[in-house]
Amino acid sequence: MLRDARAEDLADIAPVFRAIVEDGETYAYPQNLSDEQIAALWMEPPPSRCIVAYAVDGTFLGTAKTGPNRPGRGDHIATASFMVAPLAQGRGVGRALADEVLRWAREEGYTAMQFNAVVETNTSAVALWQQLGFRILATVPRAFRSTRHGKVGLHIMYLEVSGSRGASTS
Amino acid sequence: MLRDARAEDLADIAPVFRAIVEDGETYAYPQNLSDEQIAALWMEPPPSRCIVAYAVDGTFLGTAKTGPNRPGRGDHIATASFMVAPLAQGRGVGRALADEVLRWAREEGYTAMQFNAVVETNTSAVALWQQLGFRILATVPRAFRSTRHGKVGLHIMYLEVSGSRGASTS
Repeated sequence: MLRDARAEDLADIAPVFRAIVEDGETYAYPQNLSDEQIAALWMEPPPSRCIVAYAVDGTFLGTAKTGPNRPGRGDHIATASFMVAPLAQGRGVGRALADEVLRWAREEGYTAMQFNAVVETNTSAVALWQQLGFRILATVPRAFRSTRHGKVGLHIMYLEVSGSRGASTS
Repeated sequence: MLRDARAEDLADIAPVFRAIVEDGETYAYPQNLSDEQIAALWMEPPPSRCIVAYAVDGTFLGTAKTGPNRPGRGDHIATASFMVAPLAQGRGVGRALADEVLRWAREEGYTAMQFNAVVETNTSAVALWQQLGFRILATVPRAFRSTRHGKVGLHIMYLEVSGSRGASTS
C-alpha cells in the first residue's frame, strides 16, 4: 500500500495536488502549476523522498514527501508534507503516511522533524500531529489566506526523533 | 550606496557568500556552490529583490535579498536574508540594508516580515532585528550546527509592517 513514488505516479499525484491547492485551506503553493512544476516541488530527488499510497484495487489514496528541512548545517532536521486524496479522507491514510515518514526519518538519523506551515484551521491535521507527539513551537499570525476563514495562523510544529545525525559539527 | 543587484554583481556577491557559508556560523546553505547556484539562491527574479551595497570607492559592502516568504496564499508576508562582507562588518551596513528592505516591504504592501532561521549565537544580528522591532516567535532547538558552538537554536523572528496585501482572501 505504501511505496516510493515512481515517475509515472505523477499522473495520480498532480490532480490531487491541484485539487487540494485550489481548495485553498491547507497549502500555500501557487495555483495552476504544470505537471513538471508539481513534480519539481513534490517529487524531489534524494536526500528527499516521495511516498505514495494506493489501495489494493489500485485507487490512489495519497502522498507524502520528506527530507531535510534545510541544507548544509541544518540538514539533521527533517520536514515533511502530506496530501490525502479528497475521496480517501478520514480513512487513516494520513496517519499511515506519517508513521512511515517518521520511521524513515529515524532510520535516516534525523534528530527531529519540523513542519513549517500547518494551517491552524486544518484541525484534523493539527490533531493528528499532536497525537504523534508534535508540539506547536509558534503560530505565525495571519500568515495564510484561507478560502473560508480569511487570514489564519500557520503553526510551526516540532517533534524530536531519535537520530544521531550531525553528532559532530561538520 | 544601495541599489538593485545587476548580473555582474555576482562577481562580488559569490566570494562573500562562500566566505560566510564556510565560516559556518550564520547560514545553512550548502558549501561549494557554483556561481550559478549562488545566483539562483540569492539573486532571485521578481517578485523577489536582491540589493547590493557599495562604498563610494567601489568596495563591495554587502547584499540582501527579500521577497515573499511563501508563494500562493502565504505571499503577503515577506522574508529577507542579509550578508555583510567580512571586512565591512560593524559599520552599519546590515542596518542600512535592513532599513531599505523594510521600506520596500511596506511599499510593496507586505503585512509582515518573517525570518525563518536566525542563528541564536549570531547575537549581533539578533540584537539588530530586535532593535528594529522584530520579536522571537520561537526557537527551534539545536537546529543549526555551528562551527564554534555545536548545535544551537534557530530563531523564527517576526515583525508586522503596514501593508495591506491580501486584504481579500484571493
